[in-house]
Amino acid sequence: MLKDADQGFVDHLRGMLPERALRAPEPRHLEEPRGRWSGQAAVVVAPGSVEEVSAVLRVCNDARVGVVPYGGGTGLVGGQVAGEGPVPVLLSLERMAAVRATYPQENVIEVEAGAILQDVHDAAEAVERLYPLSIASKGSARIGGLLATNAGGVNVLRYGNARDLCLGLEVVLADGRVWNGLSRLRKDNTGYDLRNLMIGSEGTLGVITAASLKLAPRPAGEGTALMVVDSPADALALLALARDRMGEGVSAFELMHRMGLDFLADKLPDIRLPFETAPEWFVLIDVGLAAGLDPAGALEALFAESFEAGLVSDGIIAQNEAQRHAFWEVREQIPEANRRVGSVSSHDISLPMGAVADFIDRAGPALARLGEFRINCFGHLGDGNLHYNVFPPAGRDKTEFHNLRDGIKTCVHDLVHDMGGSVSAEHGIGRLKVGDLERYGDPVKLATMRAIKDVLDPNGILNPGAVLRHI
Amino acid sequence: MLKDADQGFVDHLRGMLPERALRAPEPRHLEEPRGRWSGQAAVVVAPGSVEEVSAVLRVCNDARVGVVPYGGGTGLVGGQVAGEGPVPVLLSLERMAAVRATYPQENVIEVEAGAILQDVHDAAEAVERLYPLSIASKGSARIGGLLATNAGGVNVLRYGNARDLCLGLEVVLADGRVWNGLSRLRKDNTGYDLRNLMIGSEGTLGVITAASLKLAPRPAGEGTALMVVDSPADALALLALARDRMGEGVSAFELMHRMGLDFLADKLPDIRLPFETAPEWFVLIDVGLAAGLDPAGALEALFAESFEAGLVSDGIIAQNEAQRHAFWEVREQIPEANRRVGSVSSHDISLPMGAVADFIDRAGPALARLGEFRINCFGHLGDGNLHYNVFPPAGRDKTEFHNLRDGIKTCVHDLVHDMGGSVSAEHGIGRLKVGDLERYGDPVKLATMRAIKDVLDPNGILNPGAVLRHI
Repeated sequence: MLKDADQGFVDHLRGMLPERALRAPEPRHLEEPRGRWSGQAAVVVAPGSVEEVSAVLRVCNDARVGVVPYGGGTGLVGGQVAGEGPVPVLLSLERMAAVRATYPQENVIEVEAGAILQDVHDAAEAVERLYPLSIASKGSARIGGLLATNAGGVNVLRYGNARDLCLGLEVVLADGRVWNGLSRLRKDNTGYDLRNLMIGSEGTLGVITAASLKLAPRPAGEGTALMVVDSPADALALLALARDRMGEGVSAFELMHRMGLDFLADKLPDIRLPFETAPEWFVLIDVGLAAGLDPAGALEALFAESFEAGLVSDGIIAQNEAQRHAFWEVREQIPEANRRVGSVSSHDISLPMGAVADFIDRAGPALARLGEFRINCFGHLGDGNLHYNVFPPAGRDKTEFHNLRDGIKTCVHDLVHDMGGSVSAEHGIGRLKVGDLERYGDPVKLATMRAIKDVLDPNGILNPGAVLRHI
Repeated sequence: MLKDADQGFVDHLRGMLPERALRAPEPRHLEEPRGRWSGQAAVVVAPGSVEEVSAVLRVCNDARVGVVPYGGGTGLVGGQVAGEGPVPVLLSLERMAAVRATYPQENVIEVEAGAILQDVHDAAEAVERLYPLSIASKGSARIGGLLATNAGGVNVLRYGNARDLCLGLEVVLADGRVWNGLSRLRKDNTGYDLRNLMIGSEGTLGVITAASLKLAPRPAGEGTALMVVDSPADALALLALARDRMGEGVSAFELMHRMGLDFLADKLPDIRLPFETAPEWFVLIDVGLAAGLDPAGALEALFAESFEAGLVSDGIIAQNEAQRHAFWEVREQIPEANRRVGSVSSHDISLPMGAVADFIDRAGPALARLGEFRINCFGHLGDGNLHYNVFPPAGRDKTEFHNLRDGIKTCVHDLVHDMGGSVSAEHGIGRLKVGDLERYGDPVKLATMRAIKDVLDPNGILNPGAVLRHI
């Protein structure tokens, strides 16, 4: 049974650590990003070294005090905000933010867990390399949190998610022991894969303190196009054609719906919209090609071939960096427009690629039986990952529909589950989806997860209540 | 404590399963591939379904009888051959060998664990796709074993190893429970990563019965070149240049040494050697490029640029498929030539890429202090993975040097470990390297592995003595 981090315990921590390592929680530490609950923490502890992280965990484990690891605070499922149970300590990695070393010839970078994603991008660029993981919150998200949640983003199609881009980890276990797995090796078959067990465990099995990450060569030339398709099914056929022609050169393939453009026009009128008449469905294709290929030319050839095949009806190919940026701006500002409209219920789902179009065909009518809504469905089609967000009718407010929220969520998630999909594609479980995991997860998997949790963290101090219900 | 699979137990199994599911072990089931020990098994059980696998494991677990999972029997570290302890059952997946379905638009294939690698290649090719995992034993290696050992091979540089190419698994746990994780999803952040925990656990945590695997589009055009370099350091610089120019288009980058050509000339004189005068070091570069690029032309441009930079002194670019095949034949027959020469000690090691050249510089002199040997060092340079094999001087036989074998191994492995490398890059631990894992492994990792093993397989029935010492 966990105990509160009471004044005596906080004083004990204070005696162990430098003064600057402890401070009172700020509002940002206690905010659940979608406002469903508020968090609690007795103190924010920001260690400056793996030894200090180890010391903190050791005393917390001995005292049965919960520890909530905290990166950039940008997670969308409440994994970083404990709202109930005994008062925990919040362990922030913000003071371990160094980029320790880059190895351009190896395509490797070694960073501390508190390094901010944008800083990692910059360090890679300084040696003419690319760290491909990219998400909207890159200016504040930290590597430790990105790994703990196995973050995704727009370049997963080509480069994989946070898991695929990690070579090694340093992790402090619940009892303070340090696993030094900070390898730069591309191949290492010596025992069980603890790295991937830690990645995606959302701070419930250990605290990541450092990581070695894969870099990629920068493509010789890049290009972006918007293409209008009749349906998500045609978008998938277009993607297959693009990959047949350009292989790994297809870096991103994002599906968008007219609703996104309507929301942008309404809420962010300064964003320049690319089409005279908004199409029902369209895709953003981003390519990064090898030397000797002209990206705009390759996109034109793709357009011509897919137009001929009846897959696309219109398209615009960016002629310069400014236009590329403008196309991406449309995609990247849709979430902000969504936020301003205010969704009744938002879903981060994935499906087998072949089931995506069918899901979209079925989900709309299923929701229509619950009421009249606007749906903005968009996302990383190349990964089968949709952000399927449900909004009130025009002129109405989300608060009027709070009583329908759970029903909408269940409707969407049941359908996703029936079609072999996942109810958390890239955001994780956190505290928000613990019930969903119990409802939809394979029972043998759940039992195995519980067994692993109990043996690696027998007192249950690590991020209590996240991923698995605290018992 | 495990018990022998005695006659009564075998009779019990016989009563549960169809007649064809049980038979006596053949010699191939009991051979340790390098002849260090001979195996034992009371019976070979070949279930025809996941339900039968589940039933077998349940009764073995209840009776405390060890189970050795068996795929194609091609492993090089004895993971499939139990030589000591109570007599186990050998569980062969050979009757679960179906390719269940291909999803070309999704780039996914679903197979049973007993599917032979070549059959998976053929099924992918039939839908104009590529399953990129490729190793010399592809005609007999089975998917379950390839996943259990996280197999590597020649295309890891571009496509990753068996782990990177797997989307989902069906696994039977020690007590017979079945985890259905046979997902085709590209993104799924719902809980701990059991898939990667099972992959590479060498049958000690569960028995893989089916898998969904990633396919890749086939490159539009392929090409191969041999290029002569002064040193491994120059080879690494050449690789970096090739990837800067061709990105992911570089499919394989294999380092070879003159010793390999000498051995081929001596033992396999029918193989046509590519150079008039054998160079000290050379590389095989294989590229698969997008539409619009000429592979031979791109390789010529790479040669010209690297010649200008002083990285290469000679090169041959394959002008047709027959020549490509001939170049690959040189690389692929070196292991067979090695086998015929007879090594004193062979090592499957990996190093941080930046340490490879330094390792080669240091290992030769270190071994020379132990005696006069011939060294054939070759391998997957793009992965930092060397096969570093030590042979007797010309005219002498390996048996004369048996007393030096452990000393050589320790010399090589100590140096690898000191330089941040791995003593098993792609072959795994099996039974051969259990001591190495104990000697070189991180102690916190080892303790964590042991804890996970004990909780997932409390009776220790799964592949006893592999990876972790049986206690």
